[in-house]
Amino acid sequence: MIVTSNCCLRRTFFALTTNCPPRSLAKQQTLSIRRRALSCSMTRSDPFKPAARVAGQRQDVWTIVNEAAAAAPEHLQPVVNMGQGFFGYNPPDFVLDAAKSALDRVECNQYSPTKGRPRLKKALADAYSPFYGRKLDPEKEITITTGANEGMLSAFMAFIEKDDEVIVFEPFFDQYVSNIEMPGGKVVYVPMHPPLQGAMKTTSAAEWSIDMKELESAITPKTRMIVLNTPHNPIGKVFSKAELQAIGDLCVKHQIIILSDEVYDTLYYVPFTRIATLSPEIAKLTMTVGSGGKNFYATGWRVGWLIGPEHLIKYVSAAHTRICYSSVSPLQEATAIGFEEAEKHDFWNKSKKEMQGKMKKFNTIWDELGLPYSDPEGGYFVLVNMAKVQLPEDYVFPDIVADRPRDFKLCWYLIKELGVAAIPPTEFFTPENAHIVEDWLRFAVCKNDDILESAQDRLRKGLKQYIK
Amino acid sequence: MIVTSNCCLRRTFFALTTNCPPRSLAKQQTLSIRRRALSCSMTRSDPFKPAARVAGQRQDVWTIVNEAAAAAPEHLQPVVNMGQGFFGYNPPDFVLDAAKSALDRVECNQYSPTKGRPRLKKALADAYSPFYGRKLDPEKEITITTGANEGMLSAFMAFIEKDDEVIVFEPFFDQYVSNIEMPGGKVVYVPMHPPLQGAMKTTSAAEWSIDMKELESAITPKTRMIVLNTPHNPIGKVFSKAELQAIGDLCVKHQIIILSDEVYDTLYYVPFTRIATLSPEIAKLTMTVGSGGKNFYATGWRVGWLIGPEHLIKYVSAAHTRICYSSVSPLQEATAIGFEEAEKHDFWNKSKKEMQGKMKKFNTIWDELGLPYSDPEGGYFVLVNMAKVQLPEDYVFPDIVADRPRDFKLCWYLIKELGVAAIPPTEFFTPENAHIVEDWLRFAVCKNDDILESAQDRLRKGLKQYIK
Repeated sequence: MIVTSNCCLRRTFFALTTNCPPRSLAKQQTLSIRRRALSCSMTRSDPFKPAARVAGQRQDVWTIVNEAAAAAPEHLQPVVNMGQGFFGYNPPDFVLDAAKSALDRVECNQYSPTKGRPRLKKALADAYSPFYGRKLDPEKEITITTGANEGMLSAFMAFIEKDDEVIVFEPFFDQYVSNIEMPGGKVVYVPMHPPLQGAMKTTSAAEWSIDMKELESAITPKTRMIVLNTPHNPIGKVFSKAELQAIGDLCVKHQIIILSDEVYDTLYYVPFTRIATLSPEIAKLTMTVGSGGKNFYATGWRVGWLIGPEHLIKYVSAAHTRICYSSVSPLQEATAIGFEEAEKHDFWNKSKKEMQGKMKKFNTIWDELGLPYSDPEGGYFVLVNMAKVQLPEDYVFPDIVADRPRDFKLCWYLIKELGVAAIPPTEFFTPENAHIVEDWLRFAVCKNDDILESAQDRLRKGLKQYIK
Repeated sequence: MIVTSNCCLRRTFFALTTNCPPRSLAKQQTLSIRRRALSCSMTRSDPFKPAARVAGQRQDVWTIVNEAAAAAPEHLQPVVNMGQGFFGYNPPDFVLDAAKSALDRVECNQYSPTKGRPRLKKALADAYSPFYGRKLDPEKEITITTGANEGMLSAFMAFIEKDDEVIVFEPFFDQYVSNIEMPGGKVVYVPMHPPLQGAMKTTSAAEWSIDMKELESAITPKTRMIVLNTPHNPIGKVFSKAELQAIGDLCVKHQIIILSDEVYDTLYYVPFTRIATLSPEIAKLTMTVGSGGKNFYATGWRVGWLIGPEHLIKYVSAAHTRICYSSVSPLQEATAIGFEEAEKHDFWNKSKKEMQGKMKKFNTIWDELGLPYSDPEGGYFVLVNMAKVQLPEDYVFPDIVADRPRDFKLCWYLIKELGVAAIPPTEFFTPENAHIVEDWLRFAVCKNDDILESAQDRLRKGLKQYIK
């Protein structure tokens, strides 16, 4: 905010008084008299200037995807959307029915306690306690948030002061960065290294690796937190027990709080370890993030949670109360019932098998086309390497993608010319390291089978000729 | 965060490097080598130290109310809750049915656009355009938020930088303060003055007044925003057109952004003016806050919105995206249908009449007891003056209220001894000005008639003998 003023005296006066906002009536009246005596006009050069935290609005990937979709010819409409990670189908009936029943109950339509509905916290404690090998305290070790996203923001708001550092592995879910920067934190990136043969042949997502020395070298006295994500978006890697133990040991050594984003925790195709369960020392430092939307196919429900020791969770609750006050009541209730009844419906097993089936089914197209991909160990995203795809040299790209990395051009081409939307993964990297994934595209397979088949069909017809 | 270190060299090194987080691999490796060379151990004195913004956790009023309720004898259980402003009844059937139908639609269970569902934005534009006397642009002038609370936080996050000042009238809804402080803003309080005869006789809530000179004297070059609230919580005042014009003129003169919290905008019993509609100059500076939860008796739905000019709303959207990503989809859809169908069901008229009826009905108890109240012009709260109530001198109050203003003691007594919960309004004041309302209590009348009657009955039996 810039203030123009011709009145040096007043400027000095304000400088002296603004740190001391008038509160009591007596004080105010005194100020009032003094200020009125300094009656020169005051104009603000730009009253609408936004705060720095929202000022930089880069063209976001969704705008680009939408523009490309709108530009696609009629015979490709609607574009097959394998971009954003929302489900192409509904939550299971037992969860939907629970939501509808909740809507009939007065208390389920009114404010929930700021820390979440007791029934949901109990259901989560019951569901997660077996992993921890002890009984979680639903009142002290669990807090409900407005989706996992606002839960993570609450965690950063709870512990990050200006210039504190937070370590984030690259690639990263893009919201992490703005969420860390909002309380004034600085993101310190540590790269995950791609499989050496990733452009040559299909490799396991496990081959994306972390250099532990590189990680430790990123730790400074200002490092307060580290963000993990397993199963990982967009890579599909499930961190091994050994990797998590090594990361956990480093965090214990340097006393760094671990925020473990495990929103895809019911979708894993190799053994899945929760870092909080490795040792009491690690548990003391760890908050685990979960998502009802991801668990029950309802990304629009905005029900998430954090689980961790009381000395961390109580401050997350306090931050969440200041951010959202409380979270959506009827869908908290439905999520509670979902957890209570999931085993009865064998839902977790079915859900995992179904998603793995979709993943295998969809990826046959890449085998068929000879394009290598990073075979996911969990989640519902697959990264496909398109280095072999040579787009027509004379193809004219619009300005919004012309100066972006190659994956944006691949993305544009696939939407506009083939009618298949994917996400350019350089969105998940800093500009410096974007080159690592500029040949890859991310596809979400959490869609109905006819959509997956339609995408395969379009890719088969439209891409084959451009593969060298 | 405090770091203990015996290694001056390293401390200096870190001081030089931490402003420059390692990003590229090459840079990281260099740092890695240099840091490894400085291998002395590092311990953190308190890894769990919370950020200042959540560290100060005063005993909140709800904890006190709950403790008092738990301490009430069995024959008063359940305590009649007229404290928190949630509805004691359900949303109307046409809105509930809309929510249930939305749950059957795949797209209504998945992410909504970050700025809100197009159908809701259009329904709001259609509903609000008549007040503005022009067609609102649903895409540019409206953004959906996770309740009005997160909407206001998004507005502060969008425009407030560290040390910017925001003017708030006192009494204030308590979330304003933490929401302003979160981005580093400073709250400057301007008192609303109580009716001179407020302790002697029932007066109109209109008589709570603002001294415009006091308001102008609170403006400094750092003032970026002012928060209005009409109909006002907890006072029940509906700001007059003349008052709003005067405030608006001041904001135009000093180019201050107006955030007008109008969540009770369908519940007014005197003419209601929206400040944004007074002049184009004022409109250019104004964002109006609305709430589906308040409009449709569903405080747990967390659907709110901001309406204002594009040059303000676009940054609120950007902040909201970073805070919550998107808001709850099926209940956005239900709220859209609520607005589309409200007129057909004559809902707004019925709703207003019903609430005014509850207000009149409940307040007869104060007339009967001879206790003066501030007769509300809108909303569903009534402030009652209890100066005439003399509690037993030998009554022992617990520690949690012993050092709080008199209204906390009145609150405790009414819950524990009468079984009626109200809210102590000094919660809505700074400590310096708390004395203004230490004799008052706030009652919420948005409850079923049997609850209102039960409260009257308990007040009649339990309070009469203590009124001098």
